[in-house]
Amino acid sequence: MRLLLLLFFLSLFYSCETNEVEYAIVVHGGAGTILKKNMSDEMENAYIQKMEEAINAGYNILEKNGSSIDAVEATIKILENSELFNAGKGSVLSNAGIVEMDASIMRGDNLNAGAISGVTKIKNPISAARLVMEKSEHVFLSGKGAESFAKYENLEIVENEYFITQRRLNSLRNAKKRDSLTDNKFGTVGCVALDSDGNITSGTSTGGMTNKKWNRIGDVPIIGAGTYANNKTCGISSTGWGEYFIRNVVAYDISSQMEYNNSSIQSASKKTLKKVKDLGGSGGVVGLDSKGNITMDFNTEGMYRGYKKSNGDFKIKIYK
Amino acid sequence: MRLLLLLFFLSLFYSCETNEVEYAIVVHGGAGTILKKNMSDEMENAYIQKMEEAINAGYNILEKNGSSIDAVEATIKILENSELFNAGKGSVLSNAGIVEMDASIMRGDNLNAGAISGVTKIKNPISAARLVMEKSEHVFLSGKGAESFAKYENLEIVENEYFITQRRLNSLRNAKKRDSLTDNKFGTVGCVALDSDGNITSGTSTGGMTNKKWNRIGDVPIIGAGTYANNKTCGISSTGWGEYFIRNVVAYDISSQMEYNNSSIQSASKKTLKKVKDLGGSGGVVGLDSKGNITMDFNTEGMYRGYKKSNGDFKIKIYK
Repeated sequence: MRLLLLLFFLSLFYSCETNEVEYAIVVHGGAGTILKKNMSDEMENAYIQKMEEAINAGYNILEKNGSSIDAVEATIKILENSELFNAGKGSVLSNAGIVEMDASIMRGDNLNAGAISGVTKIKNPISAARLVMEKSEHVFLSGKGAESFAKYENLEIVENEYFITQRRLNSLRNAKKRDSLTDNKFGTVGCVALDSDGNITSGTSTGGMTNKKWNRIGDVPIIGAGTYANNKTCGISSTGWGEYFIRNVVAYDISSQMEYNNSSIQSASKKTLKKVKDLGGSGGVVGLDSKGNITMDFNTEGMYRGYKKSNGDFKIKIYK
Repeated sequence: MRLLLLLFFLSLFYSCETNEVEYAIVVHGGAGTILKKNMSDEMENAYIQKMEEAINAGYNILEKNGSSIDAVEATIKILENSELFNAGKGSVLSNAGIVEMDASIMRGDNLNAGAISGVTKIKNPISAARLVMEKSEHVFLSGKGAESFAKYENLEIVENEYFITQRRLNSLRNAKKRDSLTDNKFGTVGCVALDSDGNITSGTSTGGMTNKKWNRIGDVPIIGAGTYANNKTCGISSTGWGEYFIRNVVAYDISSQMEYNNSSIQSASKKTLKKVKDLGGSGGVVGLDSKGNITMDFNTEGMYRGYKKSNGDFKIKIYK
């Protein structure tokens, strides 16, 4: 009997060992008032399929021992190129009736980072953020300057019309009628990946808020708010009401709880999102730590989200 | 004899009580390679006098039970209006030969914040940041949009020539000759104040880096990097190599050590600046906590700095 018990515990131990996560990827496509009752089966399927395609694009890179930077960029490009999400093509429109996009990326080994804001002609803002990180002496470029830099680095440039969709034109018309800033849906996309070298990369990309004015910058290009990565703690990508995420320094608040308070990534995320809610804000985060533990937390009705780990775990979800 | 001892300790206790700090202000005028041997007595006096004038402007407001927000704005305006510092008039020039300024402000009671970047015509950027905080739905506005907002709110607008000085024209010429980005002097100005209601406000204002390109944004308008305030922990204003201060989320890293690790403001500042140095960056911070404890720490040759407390403490310093 005792031998059987011993064997049982040994097998448990063994299965834990083999379940160790070597690489992993987690993705969000925005949080907000996303309710099952307002979603057709067709739309739901479209979102799930695109999320799966994006996750797999990054995962396939990680599986071949590729870098988490390549994985995050590849995944986010697919979401930017899809009209479904508020990033790249399909971004919401500003008060001026154009698409103005922000993005950022950060790597957890050397804390290098790149960000851009207010760009209107760069097809894939996440690639521009990566170029700022890798090819410039700066972390954060904006507006026309960021576009000149992207052209100089031979990134693909498109006309602003490329990004504009009928759906977002309608949203802007409605927002202007109500004179409101937001429809409380935050379609920002983001991705965090851990590669087989143990390096974590986080990236986030967005069109910001419908009807935004005055070249408003949200949390997405703010290192520490929308995006943060540190191999010692975690990688985080945020989505939500940017102003509240800036004021709470959301991504870094999660990391610093892990660094200074020994919190798990899940309990840290919970505490930080509670702070956001207490101030009146809403949104969510995805992230992972160096062991591949995942957080996908939010205080809205729903968040497009999913992850895939080298131990076989794979999930895509939309609602609470 | 025992009675005498008792009286002695009572008087000690009493003097401690009266030394409690009710309100305080701390200011920096930038950190960098500031060496006594390169400084004429005349210049040294000019800096000290202007620092004193700025500190007293804020202190006088605090003394009359004014708010820390008013104190920080008044103090920073004096530094912006002086040619001596790299903020407002006397700002360094970008690669395009113009002045492009960033500023931010945050209050510690409700964590409200305002920031602007890349403005070229607003006489006092700190006042624009305050208006973003108080009159807009946003935290962070940039470029032309931020200027339209400032005009809409009737802030004083000037031509870019107003900001330009011969000294900075020379610096740009030298930087372009060397094709370098910076002369390693960071003249950013900043101020943190605690008022008699216990409210902490932090503010920072800068012209950024000499010869900067591509509408670069540094740490100054980034809440969490250049500026942070929270009555529960501290207020911080940073000055230094902005890219490194963004990547280390400097201002919030100090606050989060106090929140999650029970650190003092001095030990937290020391640890954070060590992180900056370890990555290859340099600069400094000033700040205070809710008891009026002051930090003025830096890892450069010097930092223009000073503070004044309601208990009579008053210091202005330049070198190590």
